[in-house]
Amino acid sequence: MKKIGIGLLGLGTVGQGVANIISDPNGRHPLVGELELVGVAVKNLQKERNVSFPHSILTSNPIEIVNNPNIQIVVEVMGGIEPAKSLIIQAIRAGKSVVTANKAVIARHGEEIANEAKAAGVYVLIEAAVGGGIPIIEPLKQSLGGNQITKVSGIINGTTNYILSRMDKEGVNYAEVLKDAQELGYAESDPAADVEGSDAADKIAILSGLAFGGAINRADIPTTGINHLEAIDVNYARKLGYGIKLLAISERDNTQTECESSQPLSVWVEPTLVPEENPLAGVNGVNNAILVEGNPIGQVMFFGPGAGSGPTASAVVADILNIAGIQSMSVDKVLNLDPLLSAKSWKSCHVAEEREITKKNYIRLIAEDTPGVIGQIGGIFGQKKISIESIVQFDATNNEAEIVVITHNIKQGQLQDALLDIKNLPQVKKIAATMGCL
Amino acid sequence: MKKIGIGLLGLGTVGQGVANIISDPNGRHPLVGELELVGVAVKNLQKERNVSFPHSILTSNPIEIVNNPNIQIVVEVMGGIEPAKSLIIQAIRAGKSVVTANKAVIARHGEEIANEAKAAGVYVLIEAAVGGGIPIIEPLKQSLGGNQITKVSGIINGTTNYILSRMDKEGVNYAEVLKDAQELGYAESDPAADVEGSDAADKIAILSGLAFGGAINRADIPTTGINHLEAIDVNYARKLGYGIKLLAISERDNTQTECESSQPLSVWVEPTLVPEENPLAGVNGVNNAILVEGNPIGQVMFFGPGAGSGPTASAVVADILNIAGIQSMSVDKVLNLDPLLSAKSWKSCHVAEEREITKKNYIRLIAEDTPGVIGQIGGIFGQKKISIESIVQFDATNNEAEIVVITHNIKQGQLQDALLDIKNLPQVKKIAATMGCL
Repeated sequence: MKKIGIGLLGLGTVGQGVANIISDPNGRHPLVGELELVGVAVKNLQKERNVSFPHSILTSNPIEIVNNPNIQIVVEVMGGIEPAKSLIIQAIRAGKSVVTANKAVIARHGEEIANEAKAAGVYVLIEAAVGGGIPIIEPLKQSLGGNQITKVSGIINGTTNYILSRMDKEGVNYAEVLKDAQELGYAESDPAADVEGSDAADKIAILSGLAFGGAINRADIPTTGINHLEAIDVNYARKLGYGIKLLAISERDNTQTECESSQPLSVWVEPTLVPEENPLAGVNGVNNAILVEGNPIGQVMFFGPGAGSGPTASAVVADILNIAGIQSMSVDKVLNLDPLLSAKSWKSCHVAEEREITKKNYIRLIAEDTPGVIGQIGGIFGQKKISIESIVQFDATNNEAEIVVITHNIKQGQLQDALLDIKNLPQVKKIAATMGCL
Repeated sequence: MKKIGIGLLGLGTVGQGVANIISDPNGRHPLVGELELVGVAVKNLQKERNVSFPHSILTSNPIEIVNNPNIQIVVEVMGGIEPAKSLIIQAIRAGKSVVTANKAVIARHGEEIANEAKAAGVYVLIEAAVGGGIPIIEPLKQSLGGNQITKVSGIINGTTNYILSRMDKEGVNYAEVLKDAQELGYAESDPAADVEGSDAADKIAILSGLAFGGAINRADIPTTGINHLEAIDVNYARKLGYGIKLLAISERDNTQTECESSQPLSVWVEPTLVPEENPLAGVNGVNNAILVEGNPIGQVMFFGPGAGSGPTASAVVADILNIAGIQSMSVDKVLNLDPLLSAKSWKSCHVAEEREITKKNYIRLIAEDTPGVIGQIGGIFGQKKISIESIVQFDATNNEAEIVVITHNIKQGQLQDALLDIKNLPQVKKIAATMGCL
C-alpha cells in the first residue's frame, strides 16, 4: 500500500500532537503506519522548533500544502476564521479530503463547506471540533443513526467548567477564579469566547446539525455565558441540591407536525442548575460530557477531556484514519461518498423562537423583607399559569430578602411576561439572576 | 438506490426492536429508509405475533435467510452458541455481511469468524455485543485508533450493577435483591452467566481484542462474580468511601519489551471498590459504562443503557447502516475491506498470569479480638513487601474482630503468598473476603 500523504496547516499544540502520533505509530492502529507527513505550513519558518519530522517539509506558504499532489488529506489546525476557511475550500477544490478542528469555521460556514465537499467528492471530518478527544461527532453520524434523536445537551466548554467547578468547591467569586485560570493556562488572556458562551454555541450548532440532519443559523442561538454569574447563586444552588454547569442544549420541538417544511429546534447556551443525581453533575474541571437522547436508545453520555493537545490530536487522527481506511478500499476507482461519513443534511432545521423554549428555571429576586411578598410573587406566577416547584427565602439583611424560585417546565415567553409584572411590584427591588434548571 | 435486503435470525425483543426501526424510518438517518426486511427466521411459525412486517416473510428455516440472494446483511439475534455460530459462518460463506449481538459466540469464536469474514471479503460487526446501546465497539475501532491504548475497564453487566446498586442503597443481602430482580425481569431465572461474571468476561474479552489488536483466550480470564458478595462488605466499603461495582478490566503490561512476540494483558472480572469521586461510581442501576485510557487521549468514558430491546436494537441498526453506507459507495465493483471496520488482529496478545495482575486490594479478615493481632497481620504484609493504605478494625462481637485491609498497588502473587501466611496465624479465624480496589 502506498503511503497516504498528510499536510498540516498550522503547527500549534494540536498540530504538534498530530505530528507526534504520525511519527510514532508503534502500539497504535497499524493504519497510522501508512500515513506520511508530507508538508507542514507554519507562520514563521525561523522559529526554533523541536519537531519529530525533517525541517525541510516546513513551508510558510499554505497554498503549497493545499496544492501538493503528494498530499491526499489536508489537516487544518491553524484556527480562526480566515485564512482557515478559504484554505479549507481551496483544498476541497483541489480534490483533497479535509480534517479540521475549527469549530468557529464549521459552525458559521459548515453548510457551504459541506456543499463544496459534496461537489468535489471528498470528505470534511470534524471530530476534533467538539469535545476535544471525546468521540462524539462520529458516534452521532454513524453509531446513533438508527435513532430518532430528541435532545443533545452537554458541558462542551472546558474553561468555563473549570471555573464553575472551582467556584462551587471553594465558594469564591468568578473574577478571582478567572484570574487564577488565566495564570494556570486554563483560560485565554482574552477569555470572551469561552466565558460569554460563544465557543459553546459554536459547538452546539455543529452537534445540532448532525443530530437532527440540518444546519441551523449559528447567530440565532440565545447565549448566556458565566461572566455575570455570582458566587451567591452557586451557593444557593448547592443548598437546594444542585451544581451549576454551563450547558449547551438542542432539543427537537415535539409539537412539530410532519408536514412542516423546516424542523424547529430549541437551542440555547446558559448556566444551568444540574441536580446532584444527574450524570452531568459529576463532570468537573476541564472535562466535557455530551448527553444524547433518542428513541429507542434512551440516554447515552460521552465523557472525557474536552481540550488539550493530546486529546484533540487523537480526534484529528481518528478522522485521518477514517479517510485513509476508505481510500484503501479501492486503489483504481473513485468511490461514491459514504453517506454516513459525508454527513450531508437530509432536512431543513431552524432555531425556534426563544419564547418557545420549554424548561425549568431558577430565579433569584431581591425584595423588601415584608410579610406577603412571597404571596404576591406566587400570585403573579399563578396568573401566568406558571407552576412553581419551590419558593425559598434566603438570609435577609437590611430589610432585604433574597427569594429563590424554581419553576416547573414552562415556556420562556410565559416567564418573561411574569418577570415583567414581578419587576413592577413595589416590594421587588431587583431580579438578580435567572438561569435554567434540569 | 436499490434497497438493501436485511434478514433476521431470531425475533426476540432485540429482533423486534430492529424490525420496528426498519419499518419506521421517519426521523432517523435517511439510510434507514434504504433498508428492507426481506426475511425473518423464527422457531415457531404458529406463535401469535404483533409485528410491523408481513407474516409472509417469516420462516422457520434459518438456512433460507442465509442463502436468500435478496439478503445482503444477515442479522443474528437468536443468541446461544449453536446454531448461531454455524449460521454466522454459513452466511459469511454465502458472501453476506453479518451483524450480531452474540457476545458468547464472538468471545469464544471471534477469531475464527473474523478469518472467515476476511476470506469472504465481508464484514462482521458486533456493536450490540458489548454495552447494549452504548457506542463502544465502533469508537474503539475507529475513533481511538490513533492512541496507544493502555487500559479498558468498566461496568458491562447491567443485571449485576442493578443488584449492587440496590444492595448499596438499601443495605440488603444479595439473595434478597436477586429474587426481586428476577421478579422484575432484570435478572434471568437462571442468573449464573450474569452473577458469576461470565457475561462480563465474554465482553471484556471482546473489548480487549479490539483495544489491543489481538484476540485473547476467553477461558484464561480470572473471573469472580457477585454471588458470594456479603452485605457487610458493601457496608464497610461505603464507610471507607467506596461503592462496589463488578468491574471487567483489561490492561497492558507496561513492563513488556518491544521484542516480545505476544503482548501480555492483565485481564480480570471482579467485584471492585470504586472511590466515590471516580466517574464509574455514579453509574447505577442497569446502566453500563466503559472507560478507555490511552496515549495521548487520557481517559474517555462511554455511559448508557447496557441492555434492553431498544438500546440493543439501536446498536444493531448502527452496524447495519455502516455496512449499507459502504455498500452504497460502489455499485459495480467489489471493494477491499475498510481496515478500521473489518478490525482484523494486528498483533498477538495473551492473558498474563493471574499472579502478575497489579492492583489495590480489599481484604476482610475475621480474627480474635486480642491486642497485637493488627500488628501481626501488618508484619506479614511488611515481610511480603506489601504496602498498606489502611487497616481498620470494625465492630467486634463474641471476641471476634472484623479487620479490613486496603493495600496499595501490589502483584496478586505477593498477596496470595501473604494471605497464606496470615491464614496460618492462630488468631486469624477466616479470610472472609477479598476484592479489587481502584
